[in-house]
Amino acid sequence: MKKIEGGVTAAQGFMATGVYAGIKKNNKKDMAMVYSVAPCKAAGTFTTNVVKAAPVKWDKKVVEESKFVQAVVVNSGVANACTGEEGYGYCRDTATAAGEWLSIPADSVLVASTGVIGKQLPMDTIKAGLPILKGTLSHSLEAGTLAAEAIMTTDTVSKQVAYEFEVDGKKAVIGGMCKGSGMIHPNMATMLCFVTTDVAISKELLTKALKEIVDDTFNMISVDGDTSTNDSVLLMANGLAGNNEIRTASKDYEAFYEALKAVMTELSKKIAGDGEGATALFEVKVVNADTKANAKILSKSVVTSSLTKSAIFGHDANWGRILCALGYSGVNFDPEKVDLYFESAAGKLKIVENGTSTGYSEEEATKILSEPQVTAIADMKMGDAEATAWGCDLTYDYVKINADYRS
Amino acid sequence: MKKIEGGVTAAQGFMATGVYAGIKKNNKKDMAMVYSVAPCKAAGTFTTNVVKAAPVKWDKKVVEESKFVQAVVVNSGVANACTGEEGYGYCRDTATAAGEWLSIPADSVLVASTGVIGKQLPMDTIKAGLPILKGTLSHSLEAGTLAAEAIMTTDTVSKQVAYEFEVDGKKAVIGGMCKGSGMIHPNMATMLCFVTTDVAISKELLTKALKEIVDDTFNMISVDGDTSTNDSVLLMANGLAGNNEIRTASKDYEAFYEALKAVMTELSKKIAGDGEGATALFEVKVVNADTKANAKILSKSVVTSSLTKSAIFGHDANWGRILCALGYSGVNFDPEKVDLYFESAAGKLKIVENGTSTGYSEEEATKILSEPQVTAIADMKMGDAEATAWGCDLTYDYVKINADYRS
Repeated sequence: MKKIEGGVTAAQGFMATGVYAGIKKNNKKDMAMVYSVAPCKAAGTFTTNVVKAAPVKWDKKVVEESKFVQAVVVNSGVANACTGEEGYGYCRDTATAAGEWLSIPADSVLVASTGVIGKQLPMDTIKAGLPILKGTLSHSLEAGTLAAEAIMTTDTVSKQVAYEFEVDGKKAVIGGMCKGSGMIHPNMATMLCFVTTDVAISKELLTKALKEIVDDTFNMISVDGDTSTNDSVLLMANGLAGNNEIRTASKDYEAFYEALKAVMTELSKKIAGDGEGATALFEVKVVNADTKANAKILSKSVVTSSLTKSAIFGHDANWGRILCALGYSGVNFDPEKVDLYFESAAGKLKIVENGTSTGYSEEEATKILSEPQVTAIADMKMGDAEATAWGCDLTYDYVKINADYRS
Repeated sequence: MKKIEGGVTAAQGFMATGVYAGIKKNNKKDMAMVYSVAPCKAAGTFTTNVVKAAPVKWDKKVVEESKFVQAVVVNSGVANACTGEEGYGYCRDTATAAGEWLSIPADSVLVASTGVIGKQLPMDTIKAGLPILKGTLSHSLEAGTLAAEAIMTTDTVSKQVAYEFEVDGKKAVIGGMCKGSGMIHPNMATMLCFVTTDVAISKELLTKALKEIVDDTFNMISVDGDTSTNDSVLLMANGLAGNNEIRTASKDYEAFYEALKAVMTELSKKIAGDGEGATALFEVKVVNADTKANAKILSKSVVTSSLTKSAIFGHDANWGRILCALGYSGVNFDPEKVDLYFESAAGKLKIVENGTSTGYSEEEATKILSEPQVTAIADMKMGDAEATAWGCDLTYDYVKINADYRS
């Protein structure tokens, strides 16, 4: 397995594009399309929020009921959430119109939206954008980048990654793109993520792999504790790699699984590190916990603590807040056994031993915490389970961005 | 029942004081004492954080095992949390020394600490402070104010309240003070709160009333979602009102309960409104929910949403974030039935009807949201249960305060 250039167009047979259609006020790209020359098997995971955006409902139905999937249409600027029957109708209208332009059935078209909640989609603009999208579709890596840019909202960088691996003697590729910066605290899925692969695999295994990996990747990141109404991870496999279809938990399945996990882990970290207003990616590793479930709860509790996140912004080794956040997570443990470390490109330092300060150098700790990627490691000394969660610091700019997002 | 001036010294027989002993670097008052001329029955609720500060452990033991309680010694500046056996020993030493000065048993002295986690108490300073505290104890309302000031950390105002009520034909008083501004998301109790009353009441009923009321008051506020290691609510009753001891759920118990609830509700709101960096008290009422437990979960989910809190700071009627926070709370409901209102001294406005916008005036909404106390009301249309949670907006200053709290 090796990392390669590109995103959703890296795998064979996938085309993409991103354009400015006129939805956003600021002239930034606001519509994207992903298209596969061959029909795809698809899997998806979606927000667990009771308030589900209309496209989430549409996509869930398509992934579960349609024979195949062949395209995705995404808009940014308007989330099409809390829009009632009218909003759901616009998903159907978008899929139908896109299907006509692409000569594929409406129920093979996934749709996704991200942006302000509660506004209806400007359907004239969306419909006018579809032929422009169709006309600019391309297999090039640049086209994948255009798509990754067109799905951004408060993101500051576009997010894509691709891996090449071998399966059944054939070269196969998995590539993906995602967006997300605020309202990020996924539960079963995250804001918007699109992964494409040319591997041939059964729908059952595709779904199994996606669900398992989402639990360890997108469900382990948090920017602000707010689980979005639109969270969706969509995975499309068109089989053009030419391998015999993966139907069992074979070595080929493992190779696919490993590559998918690499893609989704990197995309998750890109979202966490580009959290609204963030200056640092904050990684929390919990090791030697009693169970994996508890390790996950503990690491997420720290990564979502506003006080800890503020301290990371201030490069302040305020370890009491980390112990405090472990303590209120709901998981039982002996605080007087816990060791804590900070680690980054600048070094690794033991801060706490058996629940109290090691008398570490504050200067050295601040140096470690001044890097753009910092890790806190909590050793629970209870067993051998571990988990990692990713988040970011809490900054003035997070407040600024969200105090006047709509204006 | 009527509201009166004062705090912990409002009830008969209670004295208090607050002084600068030298724990804080900024010359602000940092030690307080509350003393009752007569022995008290006591009740307490404490943090559910697994990481419990040493004074929480000490006080839990005193409240449960001691025959009576007669004094409280509080310091601010150092939390005495994550300090191991040494820290617990300092609680015992403080209580012993205070007991000697006051001629009462060490196990009738409660201690409480608030401030930085992980530092040991400066015991020489604390011990030197005790005779100064003893020498300045007074029954005056001003002495209650001095104590309320001495327990502050990042609080911007001191917090006290008192009510007078009648029980068994006698005048009785309940007064209290509290502190708390950051690390506020109490679970079974809050940062530090001290309530005194001269009513005569059985320990059993005192404890029952406190626990029930804490659930509807302190457990319904959140500043930042972080449950502190030091949360304690301590209630002392010295019986000097002269009523026959309340031993059953009588009319007298109801009068006491009502007054205690008024004191604790107001103290809770004072903490929420003085949240770190806050510019507004944010109240969330959920009405017509199916159960009270669900109404509580729903209202707390909204009041803790970073995105909603940022929007309140920006006076932005971003109602989608409120629906979103209701949606990820874990409680099931029909989003297409929910109505939402904003209310403040500037008026009341229906924003959402049956899950979508009413087409309200943004200008009017912003006017309502520009007041120092704003309320969001969510009508779930499922039953007749309701709950209220209190929090505050999320501001630049919250980040500023917590990025460099220790420096």
